[in-house]
Amino acid sequence: MSAKKDKVVLAFSGGLDTSYCVKYLTHELGLEVHTAIVNTGGFSAEELQEIEMKAMGLGAASHKTLDQVETFYQQCVKYLVFGNVLKNNTYPLSVSAERVFQAVAIAEYAKEIDAAHIAHGSTGAGNDQVRFDLVFHILCPDVKIITPIRDQQLSRQQEIDYLAQFGVEKEWAKAQYSINQGLWGTSVGGAETLTSHQALPEEAYPTPVSKEGQETVTLEFEKGELVAVNGEKASPVTNIEKLTAIAAPYGIGRDIHVGDTIIGIKGRVGFEAAAPLIMIKAHHALEKHTQTKWQQYWKEQLANWYGMLVHEGQFLDPVMRNIETFLAETQENVSGKVTVLLAPYRFQVEGISSDFDLMSSDFGKYGEENLSWSGEDVKGFTKILANQTKIFHAIQKQKQS
Amino acid sequence: MSAKKDKVVLAFSGGLDTSYCVKYLTHELGLEVHTAIVNTGGFSAEELQEIEMKAMGLGAASHKTLDQVETFYQQCVKYLVFGNVLKNNTYPLSVSAERVFQAVAIAEYAKEIDAAHIAHGSTGAGNDQVRFDLVFHILCPDVKIITPIRDQQLSRQQEIDYLAQFGVEKEWAKAQYSINQGLWGTSVGGAETLTSHQALPEEAYPTPVSKEGQETVTLEFEKGELVAVNGEKASPVTNIEKLTAIAAPYGIGRDIHVGDTIIGIKGRVGFEAAAPLIMIKAHHALEKHTQTKWQQYWKEQLANWYGMLVHEGQFLDPVMRNIETFLAETQENVSGKVTVLLAPYRFQVEGISSDFDLMSSDFGKYGEENLSWSGEDVKGFTKILANQTKIFHAIQKQKQS
Amino acid sequence: MSAKKDKVVLAFSGGLDTSYCVKYLTHELGLEVHTAIVNTGGFSAEELQEIEMKAMGLGAASHKTLDQVETFYQQCVKYLVFGNVLKNNTYPLSVSAERVFQAVAIAEYAKEIDAAHIAHGSTGAGNDQVRFDLVFHILCPDVKIITPIRDQQLSRQQEIDYLAQFGVEKEWAKAQYSINQGLWGTSVGGAETLTSHQALPEEAYPTPVSKEGQETVTLEFEKGELVAVNGEKASPVTNIEKLTAIAAPYGIGRDIHVGDTIIGIKGRVGFEAAAPLIMIKAHHALEKHTQTKWQQYWKEQLANWYGMLVHEGQFLDPVMRNIETFLAETQENVSGKVTVLLAPYRFQVEGISSDFDLMSSDFGKYGEENLSWSGEDVKGFTKILANQTKIFHAIQKQKQS
Amino acid sequence: MSAKKDKVVLAFSGGLDTSYCVKYLTHELGLEVHTAIVNTGGFSAEELQEIEMKAMGLGAASHKTLDQVETFYQQCVKYLVFGNVLKNNTYPLSVSAERVFQAVAIAEYAKEIDAAHIAHGSTGAGNDQVRFDLVFHILCPDVKIITPIRDQQLSRQQEIDYLAQFGVEKEWAKAQYSINQGLWGTSVGGAETLTSHQALPEEAYPTPVSKEGQETVTLEFEKGELVAVNGEKASPVTNIEKLTAIAAPYGIGRDIHVGDTIIGIKGRVGFEAAAPLIMIKAHHALEKHTQTKWQQYWKEQLANWYGMLVHEGQFLDPVMRNIETFLAETQENVSGKVTVLLAPYRFQVEGISSDFDLMSSDFGKYGEENLSWSGEDVKGFTKILANQTKIFHAIQKQKQS
Repeated sequence: MSAKKDKVVLAFSGGLDTSYCVKYLTHELGLEVHTAIVNTGGFSAEELQEIEMKAMGLGAASHKTLDQVETFYQQCVKYLVFGNVLKNNTYPLSVSAERVFQAVAIAEYAKEIDAAHIAHGSTGAGNDQVRFDLVFHILCPDVKIITPIRDQQLSRQQEIDYLAQFGVEKEWAKAQYSINQGLWGTSVGGAETLTSHQALPEEAYPTPVSKEGQETVTLEFEKGELVAVNGEKASPVTNIEKLTAIAAPYGIGRDIHVGDTIIGIKGRVGFEAAAPLIMIKAHHALEKHTQTKWQQYWKEQLANWYGMLVHEGQFLDPVMRNIETFLAETQENVSGKVTVLLAPYRFQVEGISSDFDLMSSDFGKYGEENLSWSGEDVKGFTKILANQTKIFHAIQKQKQS
Repeated sequence: MSAKKDKVVLAFSGGLDTSYCVKYLTHELGLEVHTAIVNTGGFSAEELQEIEMKAMGLGAASHKTLDQVETFYQQCVKYLVFGNVLKNNTYPLSVSAERVFQAVAIAEYAKEIDAAHIAHGSTGAGNDQVRFDLVFHILCPDVKIITPIRDQQLSRQQEIDYLAQFGVEKEWAKAQYSINQGLWGTSVGGAETLTSHQALPEEAYPTPVSKEGQETVTLEFEKGELVAVNGEKASPVTNIEKLTAIAAPYGIGRDIHVGDTIIGIKGRVGFEAAAPLIMIKAHHALEKHTQTKWQQYWKEQLANWYGMLVHEGQFLDPVMRNIETFLAETQENVSGKVTVLLAPYRFQVEGISSDFDLMSSDFGKYGEENLSWSGEDVKGFTKILANQTKIFHAIQKQKQS
Repeated sequence: MSAKKDKVVLAFSGGLDTSYCVKYLTHELGLEVHTAIVNTGGFSAEELQEIEMKAMGLGAASHKTLDQVETFYQQCVKYLVFGNVLKNNTYPLSVSAERVFQAVAIAEYAKEIDAAHIAHGSTGAGNDQVRFDLVFHILCPDVKIITPIRDQQLSRQQEIDYLAQFGVEKEWAKAQYSINQGLWGTSVGGAETLTSHQALPEEAYPTPVSKEGQETVTLEFEKGELVAVNGEKASPVTNIEKLTAIAAPYGIGRDIHVGDTIIGIKGRVGFEAAAPLIMIKAHHALEKHTQTKWQQYWKEQLANWYGMLVHEGQFLDPVMRNIETFLAETQENVSGKVTVLLAPYRFQVEGISSDFDLMSSDFGKYGEENLSWSGEDVKGFTKILANQTKIFHAIQKQKQS
Repeated sequence: MSAKKDKVVLAFSGGLDTSYCVKYLTHELGLEVHTAIVNTGGFSAEELQEIEMKAMGLGAASHKTLDQVETFYQQCVKYLVFGNVLKNNTYPLSVSAERVFQAVAIAEYAKEIDAAHIAHGSTGAGNDQVRFDLVFHILCPDVKIITPIRDQQLSRQQEIDYLAQFGVEKEWAKAQYSINQGLWGTSVGGAETLTSHQALPEEAYPTPVSKEGQETVTLEFEKGELVAVNGEKASPVTNIEKLTAIAAPYGIGRDIHVGDTIIGIKGRVGFEAAAPLIMIKAHHALEKHTQTKWQQYWKEQLANWYGMLVHEGQFLDPVMRNIETFLAETQENVSGKVTVLLAPYRFQVEGISSDFDLMSSDFGKYGEENLSWSGEDVKGFTKILANQTKIFHAIQKQKQS
């Protein structure tokens, strides 16, 4: 080995764990530490700059901000909307989905700067360690993965003491709730989510409820993508942010999900995801009007699976590309406007309008009028439709008698 | 044909359409009309008596009330709860499900009194005509089905005029909203539901919103069935009625669903179903804690299908018995208490407690602590888990270079 | 009505039933009969000419041959191969699939010549009537469908007698076995297939077994399509015909299928489909080597459904286009050679070679050598993989004690 | 540690690897070695005695033969038949399935004799290591698993040399083909199965082809179980053995399967499984006649999954019990006789007879006669059935124009 130090890319958030990692990787492992943070929608420019300053202050050889918001939307969020993906009919995968994009960006950055190692600060009890490891094994199999927090299982105090040796003495106060914010929602963990029976209190959620009364918002979709909010056209990413700004102050989109983690235990997590929940329900309503029964059926099958594999970090399996193609193809006619009523802690899809609405009164009105078929037609229909079960029951009866 | 008149059993509701049918079947077809009404939870004793008086007043040869509430729960509602069945993640099948039980009861009654005909008042544009016809074709293939309303497509005025000939002159005022009430919820149709874009106004829903503030309700499930509300044990049917009484005055469980009808058009319907929605979400939460990942996955597959076939009147297909057995078997450990917060127009599952909760902290705490495995174990896990996709990407890369 | 006669397009095969239709439509209904035959691979140029002569001889106003072999391959057979579609793991949909393409071609021809009617010779007991009707209702809803055979239920003798009135006196000997030949195989019906217990005798199958011994054939696929047989490149359609010529004389690809018809009864049919069966098994072997587990899983789900809807004449549902896109996308790496051993009445896939083979010995040899992971890795893997079921069993045990 | 040695249960086959383990566990780890062999149908009494003698000769503290044939049938094979389980439509899970039962028996035996350790001789590159480990982690989480072969990756020569030190000097000739025999078939591995392109030669298969010509065998099923062969009633296990004896000498049931292993690589394996393949195809034919379309559909979904989880060693997930209940429930009417023609290297299901056959000619004959419905009925049926796709196409057309 030459005198030149090996490089390590460290996924850095500025918190205690990854701050510890900077020092540990430098001083214990003798590595050249290049910190990187991936933004998938949760950070402002100021926050990103602050994180950079922290990294450099800790002695990182370099720091890089990797902006992946648009990529995250184009390569994943879009399909979560197309698929109306809510894990267990509850959770929009607010954090799960972005982890993969963070990992991919880190892996590519490591290859770019020719790093021999990648380090991340995951613990040994969560999903994130698996999501990160999987992507690194697949995209850069020759790079060595280092996970000091998982390996050493240190207490917060031990980490603080270690950092103090290097003169790093900050307020490392543990927040009461751990918050993960991104384009597609925010997750919230706390003492309550470690139990099965407790709900999160009002103050656990990052956006305070400041709006009263009701308002109506109009969402316009074009081939499944949100192209306008209240009539103003903008990019889908901008629209998601705009809808979040409108709806989150109502306390909309809060819930707690308990799910099966990749490592087999149950994990419970709170979340606040106003835009994802509203968009998915609105988009779904539009689909119910514009797609055939079996389009909806198969979309649901594939989309649930897609959501599960996203959640479990298996985004790079080629079946995911196959499913994305399918989902995109189903959006051909999913264009139109959806009206949604917003009120404190709830919303209601009011109705839709679309050129592709299959609820056309030219053919008939449900329960009222049959214009393009007759009562005789339905009689024939039901007679034939009954055939198999009728034969089955006739044979059962014969057999019994 | 002998002098003795043929018997017809008429599914009778007391409304204009089926009143017309009594006279039409008697006078135009020369049949002996035996009216029957099936109660699947929507009628009080007073209402049932009033309907009987109407039937007799119109000249029915006999009238019969068939109570099917318990049967409906035991043979269907129970499984809708086990399966968390919401059609298109929206509609608890409030009306769809009970139609089959009404049809079965009518079919059996027709066989019992040896009727040669069954008549029902369905129009030619809805699902009910198919549900009724299917059951009759299957259970009593030799009985002739008569559907005067579907066949003749008369206007209300024509029916009123016809009845007037026989001296039947009532206030046949058409209600602004057609309401169908039952154990498992109430459907609401009106001018708005014939459009795609309009919501139903407050007054369309049968239960006025009279409660303010919030309250917490505790639901206790035993092997998937609701055995107690707020600690008071009672039969599931009683508990459903009790929960409805508690929650409906909050305006909980209202929504509009647009779905694919059996006859291929889209149909839109409002509903009010406080107890079904709360029970399903509470039961689902309990399952997320007590079932394995693949139990939940396959339950969802089979239950969605079950809901679809119930909706489409295919309840008598033997696959339904197979699915019911599966669903019942999955409920072995679905026992415990669920706390639900009720508030105007919304509710929130707060948490659960169960002896079978798989979120056991003896093994690990999600995101926090791994007690029964090590960081090394997860490293091995992710390495092997990555294998196939890693090989896939390696071969892609090889091929490209 | 003007003096000008209405046009009818009649799907004409030259047999007794459709010959009867020519006369019936002309003389009883006063229509101008334009016969048409659609070739989806079952007819030689001579046969097509003979059919044309028969039509004109019967007095048709015009006759048209519509060649749909390539269209049938490109729009359907290709996807049946991509999907390895065998209905109930048995039947390659030899006839079912081509019916839709015949119906579509007829519908388009009717629109082209501005016909007010379409007639077909289907009986009232089969699938074909439904397949034809469905396509006509969808593609030309204003055209009236006429089905004399279904409507009149005449005996063969009655048809013969009717034709004799017009001087049409031929040998209308009923073949012992009804044969339907096409690009994707031949169906065989006879007295035996109307029972549940009898097999078809040797002579029922159209291709006599003339080859003995064994031979090996090499099939080359490129993105899922058969591009070469025994090293000779040609179009997929040509290759299917070539493979049929090689393999059918071994008696390969014969079987009897009993399936659920669209009208609810069970239908039993023999078939001879050497090329389809060999291609599907060879293609499937190639996929097992080149696709990931979940690609194979979801392909099977969607392809089975695709086959079912093709079989049931629902080819025009837009979900079919969505599924086709998915299937095509999965074929990206399905390229390589497959060796197949042919012998009398059977064949055996011997092996494959592909640049995309995921069975790469660089990573490990199944059961023998682990090169890219260690025993410790697998220990960690199994430990974590056991977690959920382990917790489940621990809790069961706790509960029981 | 007390003077008393810890006990280890060693899954012992008598081959080189597990013979090495006996000595290694005794001398290097200082354990008291209790060998055990589980019979799931592959061993004769003589072979079992010979294995016992080997174990005792190597110095095992005790040896135990655990007979699990009936248990294996009752708890697993039965459901593989009910589900017609062929992995990837090819492999009857001949070896995969029995591994779990071997592991369960070993785990229970270890608990019975209070062993602190379980040892097995699996390598680090196969499925068996995962199947064994999973079951032990779940059923006896406190017992330590020891896998000398996986851990040490010794060559055969190194094992032979080690054994020689203890005076164990035998002919350890490596068989050209590794054979695993059991009730539900035999797997065959060799040099060819480590390639993708080579077939196994005739001599690789354990049963030589000694029968010529053809014979017919009649299989009688009762509620899905094989209760008689050629009219002789016997237990299903006996019948499987009898059918194997009849059919294996034809070379029936041989094939090569390439599948996805639990550890993510592709694994290729030959097999000889005459009785499983014949039984599954015969049973499937009976189901096609006696079950409704959707029973067959859902059986296939659940059974494929069941087969996958059996293959992957996840037999103890409670979803498997749920699926078994479903499968058993579907067999209610799967009773009747199936005739199968046997010939060298192939067989053909000829037909079935069953009191529950839904192909009843009382209702109609496929393609020939409609007795219980009219042409008009089918016209109505197809008209309504076309509705949704018709509306879809009409709206597409409108939109385009």
